[in-house]
Order: sequence, then C-alpha cells, then structure tokens
Amino acid sequence: MEPIKLGICGLGTVGRGTVEVLERNAASIARRVGAAIEVAHVGSRQSLPQLRAAGVQISADHLAVARDPQVDILVETIGGTTLARRLVEEAIAQGKHVVTANKALLAEHGNALFAAAAAQGVQIAYEAAVAGGIPIVHALSTGLAANRINLVAGIINGTGNFILTEMRDKGQTFAAALAAAQARGYAEADPAFDIEGTDAAHKLAILAALAFGIPLQFDCVFTEGLTELDPQDVQHAAALGYAIKHLGIARRTAAGIELRVHPTLVPREQPIAQVDGVMNAVLVNADASGPTLYCGAGAGGDPTASAVLADVVDLARLVVSTRGDKNSGKNGKGVPAARVPACLSDPPATVPVLNIADCTTAFYLRFDAKDQAGVLSRITGLFSDAGLSVEAIQQREPTAGSQEATIIMITQRAREWELRRLVQALQGLDALTSRVVVIRVEDLNCAESPDEHAQSEEA
Amino acid sequence: MEPIKLGICGLGTVGRGTVEVLERNAASIARRVGAAIEVAHVGSRQSLPQLRAAGVQISADHLAVARDPQVDILVETIGGTTLARRLVEEAIAQGKHVVTANKALLAEHGNALFAAAAAQGVQIAYEAAVAGGIPIVHALSTGLAANRINLVAGIINGTGNFILTEMRDKGQTFAAALAAAQARGYAEADPAFDIEGTDAAHKLAILAALAFGIPLQFDCVFTEGLTELDPQDVQHAAALGYAIKHLGIARRTAAGIELRVHPTLVPREQPIAQVDGVMNAVLVNADASGPTLYCGAGAGGDPTASAVLADVVDLARLVVSTRGDKNSGKNGKGVPAARVPACLSDPPATVPVLNIADCTTAFYLRFDAKDQAGVLSRITGLFSDAGLSVEAIQQREPTAGSQEATIIMITQRAREWELRRLVQALQGLDALTSRVVVIRVEDLNCAESPDEHAQSEEA
Repeated sequence: MEPIKLGICGLGTVGRGTVEVLERNAASIARRVGAAIEVAHVGSRQSLPQLRAAGVQISADHLAVARDPQVDILVETIGGTTLARRLVEEAIAQGKHVVTANKALLAEHGNALFAAAAAQGVQIAYEAAVAGGIPIVHALSTGLAANRINLVAGIINGTGNFILTEMRDKGQTFAAALAAAQARGYAEADPAFDIEGTDAAHKLAILAALAFGIPLQFDCVFTEGLTELDPQDVQHAAALGYAIKHLGIARRTAAGIELRVHPTLVPREQPIAQVDGVMNAVLVNADASGPTLYCGAGAGGDPTASAVLADVVDLARLVVSTRGDKNSGKNGKGVPAARVPACLSDPPATVPVLNIADCTTAFYLRFDAKDQAGVLSRITGLFSDAGLSVEAIQQREPTAGSQEATIIMITQRAREWELRRLVQALQGLDALTSRVVVIRVEDLNCAESPDEHAQSEEA
Repeated sequence: MEPIKLGICGLGTVGRGTVEVLERNAASIARRVGAAIEVAHVGSRQSLPQLRAAGVQISADHLAVARDPQVDILVETIGGTTLARRLVEEAIAQGKHVVTANKALLAEHGNALFAAAAAQGVQIAYEAAVAGGIPIVHALSTGLAANRINLVAGIINGTGNFILTEMRDKGQTFAAALAAAQARGYAEADPAFDIEGTDAAHKLAILAALAFGIPLQFDCVFTEGLTELDPQDVQHAAALGYAIKHLGIARRTAAGIELRVHPTLVPREQPIAQVDGVMNAVLVNADASGPTLYCGAGAGGDPTASAVLADVVDLARLVVSTRGDKNSGKNGKGVPAARVPACLSDPPATVPVLNIADCTTAFYLRFDAKDQAGVLSRITGLFSDAGLSVEAIQQREPTAGSQEATIIMITQRAREWELRRLVQALQGLDALTSRVVVIRVEDLNCAESPDEHAQSEEA
C-alpha cells in the first residue's frame, strides 16, 4: 500500500523527537498501521541530516506544508497561538487531518478549530497536548468511553511538581526551587506559564472537555499558581500526613462542573501524592471503572513524540481504511467523526462551570495568634458560628520570648464562599497577628455524594 | 441511525455489570458511538428485570445468540474454555465481532481464534481480559503504538496482591492471608488459579503478544505461585527497603523475550511497589514514552464491564463507519484489521521466548548457617568463584542459646542458571543448616543494557 505522508511543522524538541522515533520504529509502526508512514514535507528554517538524506522537502513557509497536496496528516509542533492557528486552519481547509501538541492553541481556539474540522470531515488529534507520554487522552476517549466520569485530577505540569518536591525534600523556598528547576532545564527562562498555573489550566480545559463532553472553557478555569507558597506550609502539611501537589481538578457535581488549578493538600496514602519530581500523573474517577491512575513523563522530546505518533498511527489507520472507500475522498473526508474521537462531543453537554466561590473542598488554614487564654475558644467559636466543622487543629508552641503561637487547622468540606466569610471573621479578631494562609485540601477518595450541594443549599 | 445490536452470553458478575453500565450510560455512549447500542439477545438460563421489561430475547442456548442474524457484536462473559470457545468460533463464523473478558480462552486458544477472526474480517477485542477496569490493552495498542516496548511488569491478580498486603501489614502466614481473601470474597473457593499464578500467566501471555507482536505463548510462561512464600521473607524484604509483589514480567532482551510470573522484590521507591490490596497496576517501559504506570481495579462487575464496553464502543464505531460502505457487509467484513488492533501482529514477530534458566534478575537469598568463625568468608568465596557479586548482606544475630544465624543476601543481576549453580554449591556447605530460599529481585528502573546477554555469553 502507498505510504501515508506526513507534513511536520516545527523542528524543535518535539518535532525532532517525532522524526527520530518515527525513523527508529518505522517497521513496527508500519505493521500496526497496515502501511508505511513517511515524512514528506517539513516546515522549518533548518533541517536534519536524516531528512536531507531522505530527500524530504523542507519549506521555511509552514503554510506551504499545509497546502502540499501529497500530505495526508499535518503535525503541528511549532507552538504559540498565532501562526500555529493559521497553519491548523489551513490544513483543515485543505482536508488534512491534524496532530498537535499545542495545548495553548486548543484551550484558546479549540472550539472553533474542532468545529472547522468537523465541517471538513477531518480530525484534530492531541494526545501530546496533555501529560506528554501518558496516553491519557486515549484513556478518556476510548478506554473509559463507557463511563460517566466524575473526577479528573492531575499533576499536569512537571516543572511545578519538581519545584514542590524540592521544597519538601530540601526545605527550599519557592525561589530557590525554581532556580534549581531552571538550572536543570525543566523551566523556561520565563517560567510564568508553569508556575502561575496557566499551562496546567490549558491542559485541564482540554481534559474537562473530553471527560464531560463540554466545550473548551479555558476562561472559566480558576487558576492559582505556586509563587506564593511558603515552605513552612509544605513542612506543616507533611507533618500532618499530606503532600502539597499543584493539581488541575475537574469535578462533576450536582450543581455544575468545578474547574480549578491550585496547590492542594492530598493525603499521603493517595498514590498520586507519591508522584514526585518532573513526573506527571492523572487520576480519573469514573462510575464503572472506579479510580484509575496514569503516571509517566509529562514532557521531553521522546515522550511527547510518543504521544504525537500515537495520534499519527490512529489517523493513518483512518486514512488506510478510507482509501478503499470509493464514496470518500483521499483523506477520509466525510468519515463519521465518531471513529477517532474529537474533543468536543456533538452536541456539547450544557453543564455550567461553577465559580470558584461555589466549589467545595476542605481547607488548610495557618495563622499566628497571641498566646493568651481564651483565644482558641474564640477561634473555634467562629467556626461553629459559620457552621463549619474542624477536622484537625494543631497549635505550635511559641518560640522562647515570643507571645505568638502558630495555629494550623484543617476544616471539613465546605463551599469556598463559606470559608471566605469565616476567614474574614478570623482576620477581625484582635488576637490574630498574621494573615490567614489558606490552601485547599482534597482527599480525592470518592466523588462527592450526589446531594452534597443540595444539602448546602438547604443549610 | 439504526442501533448497534449486542448479544451477551453469560449473566454472571461481568455480564450483569455490562447490562447495567450500558443501561445507565446509554445516552453518553450513544453520543460517543454515533448510534445507540442495545442488547438484542442474551444467552443465559436466567434473566434480569430490565431485560424482561425491554423485551430482550433470552436463550438458554448460547449458540443461538451467536447465530442470531440481528446481532452485530457478541459479548462472551460465560468463562471457561470449552463452550466459550465454541461460542466465539460460531460468532466469528457468522461474521460477528467478539468482545471477551476470558483470559484463559485467549491465552490457550487465542492464536487459532485470532486467525479465524482475521480470515472472516472480524475483530476480537479483549480489554476486559487483563487488569479489569485499567485500559491497558488500549494503552498498549493505541496510546503507545509508536513505541518499541521493552518491559511490561504488572500486578495482574488482585487476590494475590491482597494476600501479600495482608502478609506484610499483619505479619500473617500465607494460609491466614488466603483465608482473609476468601472471607472477603476476593478469592474463589478453589483459589488455585490465583495463588499458583495461572491467572496472571494467562494475562501475561496476552500482554506480551500485544507488546511484542509475538504469538500467544501461555505454555512458555514460567510460573511460580505464592503458596511457598514465608512471612519472614516479606518482613526481611520490608526491612531492606523492598516490597514483595507477585509480578507478571515480559521483558525484551537481546537474546529473546522473558516471560515469567513469580514473587518479586521491588524497591519501595518504585510506584508499583506502593500499589496495595486488590488493586492492579501495570508498568510499561517503552523507548519513546519512557516508563508509564497504570493503576486501578483489576476485577469486579463494574470495572470489568467498563472494559467490556470500551471494546463494544470501539467495535460499534467500526460497525457504524462500515455500514455506509457499499463494498463491505453489514458487520464490517473485509475491513482492514488495522483499525481496531488485534492481539496478533501480522506477520507475528519471531522472537524466541527464553527458558527461565536464561532469564536475568537479581536475587534475594535466605538461609541459616552455623554461627562459626570463617563461615561468612566461605560463603562469599563461593560467590566470588561463581563470578557473582553481592549487593547487600545481612546477618541476623542468633537467638540466645542458638548456634545458628540467619543470613540474607541480595545479589547483583545474574542469569538464573548461574544462580542455581551457586545455590547448589551453597547447599553443599556443612555450615548451612537450612535450605536456601531464593526470591527474584527486579529494580524495574530501566531496560537491560542491550549487550548484557552478550557479555554473559562471553563470560
């Protein structure tokens, strides 16, 4: 059978990795697809020795690759959201399937791109956009396809996880841990996307669209970064049996979908709490499968290439299977979109995304208070007034000469607006000598009981 | 679009779970497939209220379901290898796709069944045959499709893992832990398949065929059960920083494929070592993705139904996409097998499976020896003669009044025949007062260096 022809735009880490893995495993990939896959045209200002040796056409103009009639599948690994968007739009318009590793592009422009692809009868595949080498997009769209998914919670930014691991293991400040990440090449020179949670929010928007069949709603993701995290809270959390992880959480509740990225205390017994360093992990809680956990490398040329090529294999199978079909075009136009699942379900589910104020978690609070008789009783009185239960309380003895003690509390689950009202009341106490540090706590053990919100509404 | 029609044979835990999950999530499944999926015919001597209410045809004769012309996909959940085999053969002969949860059937008769399916242009899908709700078959066949897989290592029998967790946490004997598993309903009245490793060997044969493209070779799996495991070794291993797990390991080496199921010491830092109780987990080490780990429930009605229905969704997409194709029959006959990957690659890889004597691991040894001067030196001398290095050695002081000490050694990696020769030499020492207990050790950290076997050959 005639080979499937790839156009690859961008020869950065991922593009180069894709060329290399494809070359290395060409025979087994061809056996799995039923046809050889070859790189036909590359968009880049540079080249690679093996591409030159193979006589592959190289164009500095990426759009020339998208317009090349021999290209069956366009692989977009240039990144960014401007040229990448035009490139993907052009490929779709030309009736080509698209594989992209670009989470920012999908999170910000995915709704329009998926709609354009559906109109043209082509597919956009994006395994590489979330969690690198972990095939979580495939798991959600095929392996768990029969499930009602209740929760997706992921360590989906390796840089952030490395920083948290350094802070815990070496007692480092956030700034020192970030510098260590940069020294190892894990963090970009401008690390804002990683440490402020934007990158994780992009990925979470994609995971949630896939898990719940809702449109991509990056703008609705509540995002809190790691930059404010104090190492003492990492240590206090560890002493209480928790790890702090920067999680992206998408959770189905009776009232709507929670979409949030923030530092989170997770009980150490939870396997995801034990995933350290630059590794990624995604926990999926679904009605039939129960909890399943997926761990692996979240970045890097080869792991991301593994994901890009998983999509290439899927789409190549689609091209192979539709070539013999006289009713459809060369590129499988007109093929039902159900074959390779798109991000958007048709029609999209119309479940609202909740404001963070209406999200429900437990909370870790830390503050300093005067070491006087009656202070603790006034504090717990405020909790009681607010109808909020305390799960654990710890008072650290003041250091010699100091008149202040550090108090750490873990609440039971409550809605965020309830907690905020309580914190306001706490801050009003004369006895408090610091601001109240708040970090959300998730046990991740089970989905919310279906009537939890209903009960809160009645309260 | 006309619904896709299922025949389900067997209404045990998995069959019932399949009916229930399908009913519960019918709307979202239909959205994912592009057509409704309905149960058209059930093979069983009993029925279920919802099946009666829906007017589903029930036949005590399973073969009647396989012969029902309206059935698109046959789901086999009766278990066993005699009737199940006839049933699957009949369904294939009738041009129906088959979904099965039956690892014994595939491991023992899969080569013939996959060949028959290929000849008929239909698919056999079997996500549920391995690791229950964990979509590991999908991960290996699609998500990691571009990789060269080097190692698959799995906790693929939940009963065995529960027993090991009880032995470690409660210091129980194997017999007491097995009784606890039976009391909780985890182990069958006849637990032989679980505790002797046959069930894990069935699953490993399937995983290896998928990972390496080799034929199913259940007969070549070296299998060692849990029945001989002494609780003191579980405790010694823990003290040395290892967990003992009953692993199924399929490993690519330069000389061939290792296929083995046995109790294994795994360093506690390895995430798979932390998977306890009835949970399953599969570690895959592949050239591009690097290590990825998949954890979840390995058994139970709902998790297994999740896997059965993942396959049903795949095959239903295939039926939908081929219905419009005038060149092919109603059930997608003649469709390239590449679309939904079969277990057997075509042509199958011709890599030999190694005899256990030629497999390479590290080893844990325990024995008692007289507490005399010079004994340890004679023992280490034997290691040195055998060219085997010692990684760790621990001598437990004899209890008061005893003249014997317990010695625990961990060797570096060696081929099993080298270790056996050494053990024979050890047993010949007068100073040894017990037999030598041997348990294999795997760090699972990396694939073997490519020339490891070559070096051994030269030695």
